[in-house]
Amino acid sequence: MLFDEVLAAGPVRALVADDAWLQAMLDAEAALAGAQAEVGLIPAEAAAAIAEVCEASRYDLAALARSAAASGNPAAPLARAITEQVGGPASRYVHFGATSQDIVDTAAMSVARSAVAAVLADVAACRASLAALAVAHRDTVQAGRTLLQQALPTSFGLVAASWLAALGSAGAALRSVSLPAQLGGAVGTLASLGSAGPAVVAAYARRLGLAEPALPWHTDRGPIAALAGASGRVCGTVAKIAGDVVLLAQTEVGELTESAGAGVGGSSTMPHKQNPVAAISARASAARAPGLVATLLGSMAHEHQRAAGAWHAEWQPLRELLCCTGSAVWWLRTSLERLAVRPDRMRANLERTGGALLAERVTTALASSVGRLVAHDAVTECVRAGGDLATRLAEHPALGLSRERAARLLDPSGYLGAADVFIDRALAAYEEER
Amino acid sequence: MLFDEVLAAGPVRALVADDAWLQAMLDAEAALAGAQAEVGLIPAEAAAAIAEVCEASRYDLAALARSAAASGNPAAPLARAITEQVGGPASRYVHFGATSQDIVDTAAMSVARSAVAAVLADVAACRASLAALAVAHRDTVQAGRTLLQQALPTSFGLVAASWLAALGSAGAALRSVSLPAQLGGAVGTLASLGSAGPAVVAAYARRLGLAEPALPWHTDRGPIAALAGASGRVCGTVAKIAGDVVLLAQTEVGELTESAGAGVGGSSTMPHKQNPVAAISARASAARAPGLVATLLGSMAHEHQRAAGAWHAEWQPLRELLCCTGSAVWWLRTSLERLAVRPDRMRANLERTGGALLAERVTTALASSVGRLVAHDAVTECVRAGGDLATRLAEHPALGLSRERAARLLDPSGYLGAADVFIDRALAAYEEER
Amino acid sequence: MLFDEVLAAGPVRALVADDAWLQAMLDAEAALAGAQAEVGLIPAEAAAAIAEVCEASRYDLAALARSAAASGNPAAPLARAITEQVGGPASRYVHFGATSQDIVDTAAMSVARSAVAAVLADVAACRASLAALAVAHRDTVQAGRTLLQQALPTSFGLVAASWLAALGSAGAALRSVSLPAQLGGAVGTLASLGSAGPAVVAAYARRLGLAEPALPWHTDRGPIAALAGASGRVCGTVAKIAGDVVLLAQTEVGELTESAGAGVGGSSTMPHKQNPVAAISARASAARAPGLVATLLGSMAHEHQRAAGAWHAEWQPLRELLCCTGSAVWWLRTSLERLAVRPDRMRANLERTGGALLAERVTTALASSVGRLVAHDAVTECVRAGGDLATRLAEHPALGLSRERAARLLDPSGYLGAADVFIDRALAAYEEER
Amino acid sequence: MLFDEVLAAGPVRALVADDAWLQAMLDAEAALAGAQAEVGLIPAEAAAAIAEVCEASRYDLAALARSAAASGNPAAPLARAITEQVGGPASRYVHFGATSQDIVDTAAMSVARSAVAAVLADVAACRASLAALAVAHRDTVQAGRTLLQQALPTSFGLVAASWLAALGSAGAALRSVSLPAQLGGAVGTLASLGSAGPAVVAAYARRLGLAEPALPWHTDRGPIAALAGASGRVCGTVAKIAGDVVLLAQTEVGELTESAGAGVGGSSTMPHKQNPVAAISARASAARAPGLVATLLGSMAHEHQRAAGAWHAEWQPLRELLCCTGSAVWWLRTSLERLAVRPDRMRANLERTGGALLAERVTTALASSVGRLVAHDAVTECVRAGGDLATRLAEHPALGLSRERAARLLDPSGYLGAADVFIDRALAAYEEER
Repeated sequence: MLFDEVLAAGPVRALVADDAWLQAMLDAEAALAGAQAEVGLIPAEAAAAIAEVCEASRYDLAALARSAAASGNPAAPLARAITEQVGGPASRYVHFGATSQDIVDTAAMSVARSAVAAVLADVAACRASLAALAVAHRDTVQAGRTLLQQALPTSFGLVAASWLAALGSAGAALRSVSLPAQLGGAVGTLASLGSAGPAVVAAYARRLGLAEPALPWHTDRGPIAALAGASGRVCGTVAKIAGDVVLLAQTEVGELTESAGAGVGGSSTMPHKQNPVAAISARASAARAPGLVATLLGSMAHEHQRAAGAWHAEWQPLRELLCCTGSAVWWLRTSLERLAVRPDRMRANLERTGGALLAERVTTALASSVGRLVAHDAVTECVRAGGDLATRLAEHPALGLSRERAARLLDPSGYLGAADVFIDRALAAYEEER
Repeated sequence: MLFDEVLAAGPVRALVADDAWLQAMLDAEAALAGAQAEVGLIPAEAAAAIAEVCEASRYDLAALARSAAASGNPAAPLARAITEQVGGPASRYVHFGATSQDIVDTAAMSVARSAVAAVLADVAACRASLAALAVAHRDTVQAGRTLLQQALPTSFGLVAASWLAALGSAGAALRSVSLPAQLGGAVGTLASLGSAGPAVVAAYARRLGLAEPALPWHTDRGPIAALAGASGRVCGTVAKIAGDVVLLAQTEVGELTESAGAGVGGSSTMPHKQNPVAAISARASAARAPGLVATLLGSMAHEHQRAAGAWHAEWQPLRELLCCTGSAVWWLRTSLERLAVRPDRMRANLERTGGALLAERVTTALASSVGRLVAHDAVTECVRAGGDLATRLAEHPALGLSRERAARLLDPSGYLGAADVFIDRALAAYEEER
Repeated sequence: MLFDEVLAAGPVRALVADDAWLQAMLDAEAALAGAQAEVGLIPAEAAAAIAEVCEASRYDLAALARSAAASGNPAAPLARAITEQVGGPASRYVHFGATSQDIVDTAAMSVARSAVAAVLADVAACRASLAALAVAHRDTVQAGRTLLQQALPTSFGLVAASWLAALGSAGAALRSVSLPAQLGGAVGTLASLGSAGPAVVAAYARRLGLAEPALPWHTDRGPIAALAGASGRVCGTVAKIAGDVVLLAQTEVGELTESAGAGVGGSSTMPHKQNPVAAISARASAARAPGLVATLLGSMAHEHQRAAGAWHAEWQPLRELLCCTGSAVWWLRTSLERLAVRPDRMRANLERTGGALLAERVTTALASSVGRLVAHDAVTECVRAGGDLATRLAEHPALGLSRERAARLLDPSGYLGAADVFIDRALAAYEEER
Repeated sequence: MLFDEVLAAGPVRALVADDAWLQAMLDAEAALAGAQAEVGLIPAEAAAAIAEVCEASRYDLAALARSAAASGNPAAPLARAITEQVGGPASRYVHFGATSQDIVDTAAMSVARSAVAAVLADVAACRASLAALAVAHRDTVQAGRTLLQQALPTSFGLVAASWLAALGSAGAALRSVSLPAQLGGAVGTLASLGSAGPAVVAAYARRLGLAEPALPWHTDRGPIAALAGASGRVCGTVAKIAGDVVLLAQTEVGELTESAGAGVGGSSTMPHKQNPVAAISARASAARAPGLVATLLGSMAHEHQRAAGAWHAEWQPLRELLCCTGSAVWWLRTSLERLAVRPDRMRANLERTGGALLAERVTTALASSVGRLVAHDAVTECVRAGGDLATRLAEHPALGLSRERAARLLDPSGYLGAADVFIDRALAAYEEER
């Protein structure tokens, strides 16, 4: 908890917390009984009695957790506890035909579903902020930087549009991950359900709002891998954007600031500092993802019909991956909402190199009249000479350039190529998905 | 090379090798010029002259590699080398409007496309073997094992069908990864192409057979992340299947053997050994994937308009991930083609517990007549007593069971639940995708 | 908590929990004031007043955690809370000259110190069990298995001795990790302490029982990396041993069992099962380590004088790595304490190959008399023929071997090479370190 | 090779290349025979004959590599090839008593030894550069930056000293890794060497210049883990320093430049750019380490007496980890040798905040005369007012400060705390280790 406001911020923490897991396991047990009643395998009254007690507040989570040590998972003691709560003849139908992994895997998918929904809501909020920035700063010129060196001009609108597009694709990939229910019994044959197995699985999945699996996937961890990969991609995308915010907020750059209320990001002893705390927290949250994804992928080799360790090894990393993805996106949302853009600093930084960023453009423009090599050498000479570049270029004997045309060629806003088209595309895709 | 036959086996190694990369970079340069001619930006003759020299055999790969140190990537010296090869007036159109990253990223996608195709071909071959095994062993009973302990019976046909389905989903996920061309110029605006930029991108992508990106993705590494995640999933799935082959081939289990020709997997000094070398190599190849995926995900935070290190850090891990995925699948294919199934050992192993695996079934069957608790205790008592279980059960006073019915209840082939349905589904999905 | 009994078992969980961290941060603040009083920088009464309130129970951990969001770390609100608790003139000396990172990093080292001590205590307990097994089973022959195929005989005593030695080295490496205090002030110059800085650091470290750093290490994450690497090694060693226990406990192998009390590791519906739950939980706990180590190593590039995210990204993985290391070792200890060894099954398994494991020995023994090739071919022939191998060998015309000598050569206990020497060495090292 | 000049630069690539591995395997075979002759187990002539042919140039590496597929490792075909080369009666002593893993593991350690030596030589060169920078820039004030915001002054000398110390510790940790020879025979008992096993191991290790292991470590991967952890630490330390170089070389910061010859790091179209190519390549090289370390740690669970995949999975990651560590250090060395320091820009950047960085100092200095709160508020007010801060402070009615004293308090070079002491310590440690 101590670090949770920084590293597990936002709504996902609660959605993957112990009581959410417990309720999801109970939902699985209730759906199992309901599905079995639906297909006539158990009495409807039994299913109702079971559903009745599948309410997390009726259970002592700490006691269940302690009992998990004996069997190696919390679903086993939970099934016993439900059986006790139901009592009477209906109790024999509790957990009927299921194995612990069915309940835990299904709960994992239910928990993931709500976590993913929360992540996607914050992704949408980020995208709304980014779309607004792309619109507002379509004409705000900014130095494009490669290898952290100023290279050519771009617009902050395009920068925001690129972030928007990247987050759009990453969100779409996460949204498309299939989250199936799991039901297979002890070894994946559903033997104790006789011929009713497949029908029970279908009803069970439908009741839980999860995808119906064609086969039990207890030892095919593809669904976990897909969820992990997509979460990792979201985190990587957040890390890119938040990293750029941090870089643009450097004292010496100053193009962006996180402008939060009093006491946030400030330093009591250093009044000039305005730390981009939200972007920093987004980076920190996202940094855990690659290692967690690797752990989940590295745990896919489940032995035979149930893994001796690799299954258990998934639980905590999956939960944390969802949580850190949620935190990363939540902090990015916060950062973007706090963002103050400084077009003046963007232009001032652009002018630091005295027009050198446009050297390529001048060279290209003059190549056809004076030859590429002559143009290149003359322009380079002017840049190195320092001083007002337009004047230098106009005065250079080899170029035959008026000062006016030189100034026009050196105007960064006239050298943005397809920036507007790309902004339009990112906005159109955003509007379409909304 | 020393370890390549083990860890980089199969066709992918060549497809991601240096000369394949070089040709893919040359293809990108040729497609760029071709696209520019197509939209009228440069003379058709210039494009033809450029295309003419975009043939890997014309270049000294070692020299290009050495020159990469100065600029930090091989595309910069390559553009110079092409320019020299073209000579004359057309040479000014080489690499026009592009930046090194455009060429390297596009080449990465082209290389990935052919590697993925090869991986998928071997996945298909694995699936053909697995489908045949699922059909052939539909009725071959085998002990289902949870936590490496025998649990309930299953059929080897269902085991094979589960592997088939898992590999099907993993392959489908890999197939669905979008591989876009990249073209953005120095900072992603395509500034030097004026208003023609988007049209050039479209033609460029089409000529290369890659997806057309809505925006340049030079700093949105989503496409790399998606490819990484899907490759990692394929490797994890291979690791699961190969791991099971190794376990089933243990001396003490002996249910599967890799039956290869003389000298393969054998031991000159230990004639009884038959090592499942192919499955072992598949595991070893797949083991690298999680770390490589993590490296790629961890490199997504590209700064500004081009990363100062994170971009370069992708090249080798991406290549190796494709290569180890190819090797893993190729070795799995080999293992499955070598596989000798021993139904006799499967049945013998099943009988080691003297029918105890069916205890659950007997208990369930008798629950309605004598009560669940009575049935459970009596059955447990009989199992613990040892000896012929059918006889013990028939003799137990509390159960009222004929020896005949007891034997029927203890027949594993009668307790396979939905195994056949699941096999049918896996086969149907396989047939559909073929 | 839900999974903690499985994945975060043993004493370490509490030692790295929130209140332990809080107390460790308070200890750092108290030691700072104490050290400053010691060198005459602040009044002794002020230090005493500060020390007085540095008691975790005085603080509202949840409130501190919530306040961490504004500054990005919990040490900032804690310094304010301490200041309030102290009140009066002494309050101005709270956190004097320090920065939040000094407190958090120092607390991390204090927490690590107690966690490492607990890990090492459980490592010692494991080693005691292993030493006893090595002594008890010095003469218990067992099949040595390579690539999971029986290869040559070994003794279970040597197996235990190898585990003992591996755990000894891993424990020693963890013990040797240096855990330094951290104190540098805002940018690592200790500017506000004037010339007293270094003396304060020395006293501060001594009071905390941590190593004195030569320089502040706020942006040199070497100490974290060393701790991570050593923890990862311990986990990998546990995973090896626990993995072998799981394999040796397979139904078909049966050489080891975890023999726990009623309800532990058993299955209510499958009375014959005895799951090695402790070894399984050890594997599951250890499985997280590689990903966590990678995250910590990947977070070492702290920018300038304090990282914008990479520092924060360490907190949770470090805590979890300590916790999963503790859990892995604790479960291994439990598994070893529960271990029932079955020498009868070891010998029975050894005999499954009908003496073929000793083929190499027979060949070698006869090489000088009949020639290596002749010996090899004849022995291979006998092995392949099946039946009693000693008889076959005695009857083979090319070998000239008496049945008695053949039987002696086929006795696995006579072909253990240096097993005893290695056992003695492992035991001697164990005794020396105790 | 295409990317090797960037990602596998420096001497290590050759030291871990195929022919180095081959020679190391041959050295192991020669040392084995030599050791056996030494203890009287085989004729001295046989050992000489074997040693004679243990020369890499005699073998067809490509053919050996191809043959590795059948057995799963290259040592098996190599033993056969040596046997053929030796011919005659001595050939029967080739590879006597050894198993393939003995040869491969020992070769890995020999290769690692030379790679580590090369890494340490480049670490030493880096340290020489850093020591010189620490000396030269002891009095060069620079803005200390926390969270990428200017915080308090530091000196570039201290920055260099901190890098020096970090690299010193990381290098020392790598130097201290023990690299043992491996010899155990098929299952680690050295059975076929009878009682001579331990003596042979001692002589074998001594001849190879490797540490003598107490026990065979074929399934205790501690030595690999230790090497991996130490390499990862070196890479993380390089990544920190190189990352700072990149940040300090930003166009807007400009405090450091990599000043290389023509054509290096420059851009033909953007003459103002001077990319810090060496630091970028160092970061890119180091970025692979965490994933590789994780793969090696994740492969530690070798089954029984030889792993079915986990062993093979180590080879390539170990080689790459050594190679990328070498490349990272080599590029850092290059970057440091190219480094041009710009004290003027350091001071200019420091002045951007108009003295605000010293606000803390002024507040502290006035706390005793006017009270901390009054001082803090008044100073903050002056900072926010802008303009010349010394004048503002002198004019503020609440502070009673002369302009002269204000200016002295605002002089960054007077507020460097223990910077000099820390520089001295780093230099002293450097001198001591040389």
